[in-house]
Amino acid sequence: MSILAIDLGGTKLATAVFLEKGEMVSEEVIYLEKRKGPEVGLLISSQVSKILDIQQAEGNEINSIGISVPGISRVKEARVWAPNIPGWEDYPLLEEIMEVSGTIPVTIDSDRACYILGEVWQGNAQGCNDAIFLAVGTGIGAGIYANGAVLRGAHNISGAIGWMALDKPYHKDYISSGCFEFHASGEGIANTTRQLLLEKKDYKGELSMHQRASITAQHVFNAYENHDPLAEKVIEICIEYWGMAVANLVSLFNPEKIIIGGGVFGPGKKFIEGIRLEAGKWAQPISIQQVSIELSALEGNAGVYGAGYLALHRVHNI
Amino acid sequence: MSILAIDLGGTKLATAVFLEKGEMVSEEVIYLEKRKGPEVGLLISSQVSKILDIQQAEGNEINSIGISVPGISRVKEARVWAPNIPGWEDYPLLEEIMEVSGTIPVTIDSDRACYILGEVWQGNAQGCNDAIFLAVGTGIGAGIYANGAVLRGAHNISGAIGWMALDKPYHKDYISSGCFEFHASGEGIANTTRQLLLEKKDYKGELSMHQRASITAQHVFNAYENHDPLAEKVIEICIEYWGMAVANLVSLFNPEKIIIGGGVFGPGKKFIEGIRLEAGKWAQPISIQQVSIELSALEGNAGVYGAGYLALHRVHNI
Repeated sequence: MSILAIDLGGTKLATAVFLEKGEMVSEEVIYLEKRKGPEVGLLISSQVSKILDIQQAEGNEINSIGISVPGISRVKEARVWAPNIPGWEDYPLLEEIMEVSGTIPVTIDSDRACYILGEVWQGNAQGCNDAIFLAVGTGIGAGIYANGAVLRGAHNISGAIGWMALDKPYHKDYISSGCFEFHASGEGIANTTRQLLLEKKDYKGELSMHQRASITAQHVFNAYENHDPLAEKVIEICIEYWGMAVANLVSLFNPEKIIIGGGVFGPGKKFIEGIRLEAGKWAQPISIQQVSIELSALEGNAGVYGAGYLALHRVHNI
Repeated sequence: MSILAIDLGGTKLATAVFLEKGEMVSEEVIYLEKRKGPEVGLLISSQVSKILDIQQAEGNEINSIGISVPGISRVKEARVWAPNIPGWEDYPLLEEIMEVSGTIPVTIDSDRACYILGEVWQGNAQGCNDAIFLAVGTGIGAGIYANGAVLRGAHNISGAIGWMALDKPYHKDYISSGCFEFHASGEGIANTTRQLLLEKKDYKGELSMHQRASITAQHVFNAYENHDPLAEKVIEICIEYWGMAVANLVSLFNPEKIIIGGGVFGPGKKFIEGIRLEAGKWAQPISIQQVSIELSALEGNAGVYGAGYLALHRVHNI
C-alpha cells in the first residue's frame, strides 16, 4: 500500500509518497510564488494527478491521499479556511482534488493536527496517547493529541493557542493575533525587537543595522548566535512566554510529551532548557515532572508526515 | 436499575440513589466534622453498606456505585489523593468500598470529572460532545469533556487549571496553588481583599469591620451585594482572571459550552456577563462566538450527579 501526502504551507507545497510503515519513497517541493485562490488549488490537483500517473506507471497503487492545510479544515462543509492564501476563506479543496483522485479517499486536516500526527507516526511522540505539538511559525498553533486522538473541538478550531491570554491587562495590539502570538511568534519576535530598539537608544549592535520595519525573527536568531545583548533580551522574553504556554498545556492536559517545532523556532535546541525552567515555575508540580519537553524530530517535515498518517488512518478505518 | 452515587467533599459526604434516567430517589448529606484518614473511609463504607441494605429491603437492586473524590483518582494504582482530607495522600478507597459492595462495580473519579459528567447527564451540557466545567471553590479545577469523553491526561491529573499562568512575571505567592487559583479561587478572593485593605487605608466600608485574617469570600460576596466599592473592586479583578481563563479554554478546546460553578462562585449569575465580555477580548474570535457560557444547572449537586453518571456508564460498558 502507498499513500500520497501533501503539505500545503503559506509559501510552498510539499508532496511525498509513503509506504505503510512510513518509508518515504519520493518527495517534491514547489514554491507557490505569487499563486493565489484557484491557482493554488490547480497546483495541488495537477501535482496529485501527476504523482498518481507516475506511481501507476511504476505499478504502485496509491490507496489514500492526505492533505495538511495552513488553516482550518471544515470537515462538515468540505471547505478550507487558510488565512495566508489569498482567496482561501472558504475554499472547496476536497471537491477539486476528488475530481482528479477518482475513487481514492482524500482526507484534509489542519497543519497543527498534522504536525502532532506526524510526530505520533514517525517522530518523537511515537507510542504516546497524550502529546502536544507547539508550532511556532509566523503564527502559533497547537496540535493536541489526547487519549489517542486529535482533539478537534466542536467546530474544528481547537488548538488556537496563539490566542492564549498570558499577560493582563488586555492590550489592543492583541486584537488580530492574540496575546501569546503577538509576543512570541515569528512576527512577535520581530515586534518585540522593534520595541526594544525604540527604547534602547544607546544600543549599537548588529540589529541596529537593519531598517526597523524590515527586522525579522531570522535576524534576531543570527544576532543571538553572536551573543548580541538585545537579541538575548528578546529571546529571554520569548522564553518566558513559551514557558508559560507550555506550563498551561501541562496543567490542562497532563501530557506525556510536548514537542516544539515550527518554521520560526530558530536554534530551538538552545531554548528548550530555558522553556523547561520557566514552565517548571508555573505548571502543576506533579504534571510537570511527568512530561518530556522536546524538539520536533522531523525537521520541518512534521506536516507531510502527518498528512501521510491522516491518509493511512483513513484507509485503516474504512 | 438503580445506582448509588457518592460525592465526597472536603467537609461533607453526599449520597444519592438514582434510577437509570436520572431520577433521584433518595439523598443524604453527612458532615465529616473532624474525621480524617481511615475514619472518612469508614464513614463512606458504612454509608454504602447501610444504603445497600435499605435498597435491598425495598426490593431495589443497586447495580453500580460511583464515587466523586475531592482530588485525584489514580485508577491504575487504585488509590485516591485528596489534599483536603488529612491522611488521604494515597488512600485505598476502592479496596475498602469493595469489601462492602461485593460484586457491585465501584468507579471512582475526581470531582472535576464528575462535575462535567453531571452536567452532561442531567444539567446544562446535555447533548454536548465538547464542554467544560470550571469549578471555583476553595481551589479551582476544570472538568473537561472533549469529543464525548472526559479528558484525563497521561496520569489522571488533567484539568489542573488553578495552575494556569495568566499574569507574568512569576511571583513566589503562586508556589502552593498556581497563579489563577492564587488570584481567583475562594481563597484568592480573600487574598485580594486583604491586599486591597492594606493598600486602601481610607476605606471604611463593611469589609474593614472584619479581622483581616478572617476575611472570607462569603464576606466579600455579601459586601458586593450591598454595592461596597472594595468588594466591587475585588470582584472586578476576579472577573478579569475568570474571563482570561475562560478565553484560554475556548481557544484551546473550541467547546460548545463552558459551565461555571463550584462552592465559591457566590452570586454567580451576576458575574457571567462580565466574564463573557472579558473572555471576548482575549479568545480566538470565531471560537468565542460558538461557545455558550453558563452557570451550573445542578446547584451544588453536579458532583453527585456526575458520580451517578460514572456508575451508569460503567454498567453500560460492561
